Amino acid sequence: MLHSLSLSDVLAEHARSRPQVTAAVDGDVRLTYPDLDARVTRLADALAARGVTPGARVLWLGQNSHAVLELLLACSRLGAVFCPANWRQSEDELRFILDDLTPAAVIWQPSETTTPLHTTATTPPPPGSAATTPLPPPGSDSPTAPPPPPPSSDSPTAPALRAGTASGGTAEAGATRAAVWVRAGAEYEALVAGGAVRDFPQVADTEPTLALYTAAFEGRPNAALLSSAALLAHSTSLLVVRQMEPGFTFLDNGPLFHVGTMMFCLATFQIGGTNVFTPAFDAEEVCRLIDAERVTQAFLFGQMIDAVVAANRESKYDLSSLRFVSHSQEWDDMITVDDSPWCRSKMGGYGQTEVGGMLTFLGLAPGAAGFAGRPSPLAQVRILGPDGAEVPPGEVGEICARGKTLFSGYFARPDLNAVKSAYGWHHTGDLGRREPDGTITFIGPRLRMIKSGAENIYPAEVERALKTHPAVADAAVIGVPDPTWHQAVKAVVALAPGATATAEDIVSHVASQLASYKKPTHVAFVAAIPKRGFTPDYDALDTAHGGGNYPGA
Amino acid sequence: MLHSLSLSDVLAEHARSRPQVTAAVDGDVRLTYPDLDARVTRLADALAARGVTPGARVLWLGQNSHAVLELLLACSRLGAVFCPANWRQSEDELRFILDDLTPAAVIWQPSETTTPLHTTATTPPPPGSAATTPLPPPGSDSPTAPPPPPPSSDSPTAPALRAGTASGGTAEAGATRAAVWVRAGAEYEALVAGGAVRDFPQVADTEPTLALYTAAFEGRPNAALLSSAALLAHSTSLLVVRQMEPGFTFLDNGPLFHVGTMMFCLATFQIGGTNVFTPAFDAEEVCRLIDAERVTQAFLFGQMIDAVVAANRESKYDLSSLRFVSHSQEWDDMITVDDSPWCRSKMGGYGQTEVGGMLTFLGLAPGAAGFAGRPSPLAQVRILGPDGAEVPPGEVGEICARGKTLFSGYFARPDLNAVKSAYGWHHTGDLGRREPDGTITFIGPRLRMIKSGAENIYPAEVERALKTHPAVADAAVIGVPDPTWHQAVKAVVALAPGATATAEDIVSHVASQLASYKKPTHVAFVAAIPKRGFTPDYDALDTAHGGGNYPGA
Repeated sequence: MLHSLSLSDVLAEHARSRPQVTAAVDGDVRLTYPDLDARVTRLADALAARGVTPGARVLWLGQNSHAVLELLLACSRLGAVFCPANWRQSEDELRFILDDLTPAAVIWQPSETTTPLHTTATTPPPPGSAATTPLPPPGSDSPTAPPPPPPSSDSPTAPALRAGTASGGTAEAGATRAAVWVRAGAEYEALVAGGAVRDFPQVADTEPTLALYTAAFEGRPNAALLSSAALLAHSTSLLVVRQMEPGFTFLDNGPLFHVGTMMFCLATFQIGGTNVFTPAFDAEEVCRLIDAERVTQAFLFGQMIDAVVAANRESKYDLSSLRFVSHSQEWDDMITVDDSPWCRSKMGGYGQTEVGGMLTFLGLAPGAAGFAGRPSPLAQVRILGPDGAEVPPGEVGEICARGKTLFSGYFARPDLNAVKSAYGWHHTGDLGRREPDGTITFIGPRLRMIKSGAENIYPAEVERALKTHPAVADAAVIGVPDPTWHQAVKAVVALAPGATATAEDIVSHVASQLASYKKPTHVAFVAAIPKRGFTPDYDALDTAHGGGNYPGA
Repeated sequence: MLHSLSLSDVLAEHARSRPQVTAAVDGDVRLTYPDLDARVTRLADALAARGVTPGARVLWLGQNSHAVLELLLACSRLGAVFCPANWRQSEDELRFILDDLTPAAVIWQPSETTTPLHTTATTPPPPGSAATTPLPPPGSDSPTAPPPPPPSSDSPTAPALRAGTASGGTAEAGATRAAVWVRAGAEYEALVAGGAVRDFPQVADTEPTLALYTAAFEGRPNAALLSSAALLAHSTSLLVVRQMEPGFTFLDNGPLFHVGTMMFCLATFQIGGTNVFTPAFDAEEVCRLIDAERVTQAFLFGQMIDAVVAANRESKYDLSSLRFVSHSQEWDDMITVDDSPWCRSKMGGYGQTEVGGMLTFLGLAPGAAGFAGRPSPLAQVRILGPDGAEVPPGEVGEICARGKTLFSGYFARPDLNAVKSAYGWHHTGDLGRREPDGTITFIGPRLRMIKSGAENIYPAEVERALKTHPAVADAAVIGVPDPTWHQAVKAVVALAPGATATAEDIVSHVASQLASYKKPTHVAFVAAIPKRGFTPDYDALDTAHGGGNYPGA
């Protein structure tokens, strides 16, 4: 274990090396690294006493808080897995996560979606109900109570993570009932205060310690498991590309259930900087915190930056400590424009939760042809065809990865995990292309594929070409049955207001960019492309425009 | 193996991601990353055909060369271990390494110390000799010859590394004879050219791939084994602290057998930069190369910088590409003074080969009380007492470490390895103190060490040589202040009753056994060496004979 370095180990080192440095700020709470270390030790002990065994899951249902970092570190100390869930989800979606993750403990903030879950979970089942699992002692109400007896062997509270057993998916599963529920705030504080200061056995840094739900391939999300080793490797890559130094202060105003904010929270933690937590984005509060805490960077882009500029138009707040990306002149005048590769490249790159955050960085590829840039110093990328063979530069294939930042698979999805790691490479599910200068272009998700005359055609690639036509505002591509070629390509196009273009114009534009077999042979013009979230609603498009004959269907 | 990332893997990624980037420059040789990748593949194949199996050792006896990087990468591709030996050592010292490391292949440059070794190794033993190990086919003379048959099971050519068996220490061991010897230059080039392009099985990044001799605790050095995982973790820490970016060009003018140059060679490799190799330090040539190759950083400090300034007093060379530490006004005017934490802190910190290079960085601890600074983001440090318990801040104990950059133990030293990793922490053998601000002060070696011209000299090793002189009854070695080299070696000698010897006799005797820089430049004759128990009383010797300027406080 000489080579193991967990998040818990880093915290212990910071407590030794940085006794006076502020680790976390959250409203009135200010914690030095020794403060944080002591709280995490007590929290770990208290969770262990309530049945959080190695491999068990701890769920957070709430907004951003220093408690999120504490719970993650306590789980690392215990060898447990922490999951901050997306609190914006519906009650049904959160219930799915409870049943899927079967957490041993839930720390929750009341809301119209979480309160019904808590009520279900803590109400004894009616007499004669099939759910016979005994409720644990009411740890959420009396955090200093003695530890509960170990769960009986048939209790679903904490199945061994390593077994990789798929949990049941029924909404009223006993697992949901069996968890200890602790309300954020006073109850959580009492939980921490009641824990003992003691030593914990060393936990290997290859054990999963963070679970983030993502990748709803088939309509329901999957929990990507990230180990300490992967999280710290990814953090280190951010230290390199963002040129982070001690004293770095990050404002956690983006959602911590998303890897985009979590990855910078952890990089700031790793370099011994200060995390400032705020529940969610509020432009005025962001300005106030940047000024008060001399924040170095925040989770800001696009419209959020415009909102901050608008909120500070009177220069009420001094934002000069922020070292961040150039945006508008007004913004650039308020902050310090930063020259690190990360900021120079406007945070360009390609990533996903399953690789710990970023897999490639535009900042590592000045003058790149491919706008996703080059891989992290701790990862490898290959563009693979469906047969697992590398496709030549210039051709589209699936972006596949190996390296220190990669996840440990999805929780309880053995079949999906086998598919995703085929041929010894993690398959991102995204299409990309290696350019002649070796850099990567991200094409789009590999969700759909059209098969025409034995050729694979990816709608995302054709759509990308369609959208470069000046008259095209939006476009989607489907496959329609074809008597000769099995399928033909059909473009559904929404023109820009006032613009005109013929079907021939559109087709010849695509043909000028892509191999001829990829060009649409049918074009339909519509007012707007139906969407499901940010992506085209292909099912609706197929129904409306005659799609069918897809491969593998 | 989804999480494994070896040096060989990084090279393969660079060949994909950086097809036009120059990886290595060495005289007339210029190699892009695809060039380097192809040569390494051929070299790996050629070495495998000559008996370099996984775990086998490959020894380099020569000055700096692009071949050093190629051999390291080929060993990584094969799962073998590469050792660049200190070519300044005596014939006797190099013979010890040959016998200790039992390399399967030796790549050598002729010199007055290496040529006799080659002659011994390649001359058949006289008839009736005890050494019956058959010579391998003359691969060094016919590199395109078919591969030799696999070694017989009793051949000492390549004992399994994992077995950790100590090799014999006899000068005429069969192991020395059994190695394939390849002369650097044309023979090496023919070896590379004769290798085939093929795939190699993936090698776990936890396998040792680099061996560097160091730590002559008891008079003889030990080979510290470093895995790809440790080397890349350490490189990443340098990327962070030195804020290295793609385009970084490093001039390898320091010795590559020393971790101080090797670590920057590898960090430059990891970020996809360019390594420029030059055989050894020459001020004028350093200036020429910085100018010609737009070098970002070189292995320069103190007197070397003064020599460069003197060589460029006429401003014949443009050194402005160098982004390096501030030194003198003249120097600062020639170069671009760099603001990275590494350069700001004047490369301050604490390290040793066994931790991959640097364990702590002053650049990570602005305003530190302890001049060694704070640990690498990928390591932990504790100051432990002899009982393995942490000593409180302010008290001196042994600097102990854990983390991603740590070595895998010494080659074939199971007993020493057990001692060095007592209580689950690597014991550096150096004393340190945790200051109230959490930073580290390096006090000095727990055993004595002399630092002369940046070289480590272990008194035990010099004393061992002194005592082999027939007139010497006892001897002790101290370091005395030296205006040029910081310290000089002073021998305190007690002659045997009735024996006579001059200082010159003593010095030339040591010089015949050890590298020249280790020989005493001062000799004092005494009746008896003062002792503390069985070891010399070094404090009394320092007081009586002017010792001082030891490394550390």
